[in-house]
Amino acid sequence: MSGLSFLKGHGTGNDFVVLPDPAADIDLTPELVRGLADRHRGIGGDGVIRVATTAALIDAGVIAQAPDGVAPGDWFMDYRNADGSVAEMCGNGVRVFGHVLHDLGLLSGHHAVIGTRAGRRELTVHAVSGSTADVSVDMGAPGVLGQSTAVLGDRSYEGLGVDMGNPHLACVVPGLTSQDLAALTVEQGPQWDRSFFPDGVNLEIVTPLEDGVVHMRVHERGVGETLSCGTGTVAAAVASLREAGKDTGKVEVRIPGGAVTVTVSGAGSELRGPSVLLFRGVVETGDLTFS
Amino acid sequence: MSGLSFLKGHGTGNDFVVLPDPAADIDLTPELVRGLADRHRGIGGDGVIRVATTAALIDAGVIAQAPDGVAPGDWFMDYRNADGSVAEMCGNGVRVFGHVLHDLGLLSGHHAVIGTRAGRRELTVHAVSGSTADVSVDMGAPGVLGQSTAVLGDRSYEGLGVDMGNPHLACVVPGLTSQDLAALTVEQGPQWDRSFFPDGVNLEIVTPLEDGVVHMRVHERGVGETLSCGTGTVAAAVASLREAGKDTGKVEVRIPGGAVTVTVSGAGSELRGPSVLLFRGVVETGDLTFS
Repeated sequence: MSGLSFLKGHGTGNDFVVLPDPAADIDLTPELVRGLADRHRGIGGDGVIRVATTAALIDAGVIAQAPDGVAPGDWFMDYRNADGSVAEMCGNGVRVFGHVLHDLGLLSGHHAVIGTRAGRRELTVHAVSGSTADVSVDMGAPGVLGQSTAVLGDRSYEGLGVDMGNPHLACVVPGLTSQDLAALTVEQGPQWDRSFFPDGVNLEIVTPLEDGVVHMRVHERGVGETLSCGTGTVAAAVASLREAGKDTGKVEVRIPGGAVTVTVSGAGSELRGPSVLLFRGVVETGDLTFS
Repeated sequence: MSGLSFLKGHGTGNDFVVLPDPAADIDLTPELVRGLADRHRGIGGDGVIRVATTAALIDAGVIAQAPDGVAPGDWFMDYRNADGSVAEMCGNGVRVFGHVLHDLGLLSGHHAVIGTRAGRRELTVHAVSGSTADVSVDMGAPGVLGQSTAVLGDRSYEGLGVDMGNPHLACVVPGLTSQDLAALTVEQGPQWDRSFFPDGVNLEIVTPLEDGVVHMRVHERGVGETLSCGTGTVAAAVASLREAGKDTGKVEVRIPGGAVTVTVSGAGSELRGPSVLLFRGVVETGDLTFS
């Protein structure tokens, strides 16, 4: 894929290779995705995002049809995990996606309806300063699943199961300070209730809501601890609001990779936070496909 | 450092951000190096290499003087570790350095004398095919330190101490097959004789020389297991030749990141292997310095 142009960006430390490919000309195989995402022998990233029109991706056979409410000419976030698999949605990736649309002049105004595999989403690029943008995106309605328990290290945590398209257990721990949280060992991963979460779970450990702020660390299913997880921050906001006796509200969620603001409303949720464009480049090697 | 141009390349999986900076204009602080090398919020690499003339680096106060046998106009490999510290030499990085000189048209012919913090080195770009080059570099005379022992996992290894500017213990294990080697757990790191290696040691586990080939895995001091270590492959070649009753010879060393060829002569050693240019780019963010 020598000659391929890309941008590299991150949202609160979750980093992505973005391929501007409006007509969906690139044969984005799992092998190529793994090659692009490889941190030593590729570009490196948690995911690869193609920017194409919905119509082009349908024509190329990448998606079957436009999501409800998405027009053929709307931009579609074709998101791939670093392992080459597809993913429905990525709350940090979609901010970088919106930022790139703005940067390339593909956004009319500051707002867009976009397609994702999780359905129609709306995003707004509020401001751009240098290489940093402030972007919000609707994250859909959190599905509250009820209480469950997980064990991490030698401690048991009770939390709220939240379906954000992917499964979360957000555990607000009474009395936990941000210092306590920083001292926890999260890498090992949790034991969880497999009848409650048969497909695994993303686990958030969260401090109680105080002055509109919570601190959170996250162990992502199949990945390990990460600097940030967009859907996880929404789950943490939902759980911490509930713990404080509220169904709706605005929460600043501080994660190891930075901070985002989550607004939970009656109808859905919104994630707002930074996107940073790190560099832009052109692939040199013709041998970037890893099987 | 928005606007900074760079190349990214790797030598057998050891990857580097290369900055063409002939006049040494960049203020390459440890913070900037860490930012550039960061794999999530920078470009990502095991090291950062500046390409500048020896004279320019002296003028900029980066080095005190030209190494013996290096002219002011010769290119100098200003190598930095990912943590921001300087390093004398990097056997895989210097191949990428030579490749970049060739790529940018800075090499007259295929051969160059260059300066490094370890002294004068000669390199030859034998061939370039697409984005891959075949490069050899002299690695100086291995200093044989004698026998020592290390413990890795539940096993004790006897090996040859070799000084390549940095300390190595290359352990050729009788009867060890490449399959056995692949099954070893190397991450944990060794216990070693601290009176023999007071500054720590790079440990190589090596299969016996067979048809000119050895297989090797390496635990780098302060880093952990890596895909490749240039000086380590030379140490492994020296030890495996000795084990076979030879002082000189040519050895193909297969490491997890690929393969290189080491030639040990009476006067010194040469490392020959691939360099791959992965991509070239321009830094977008103005906030790439990490303290």
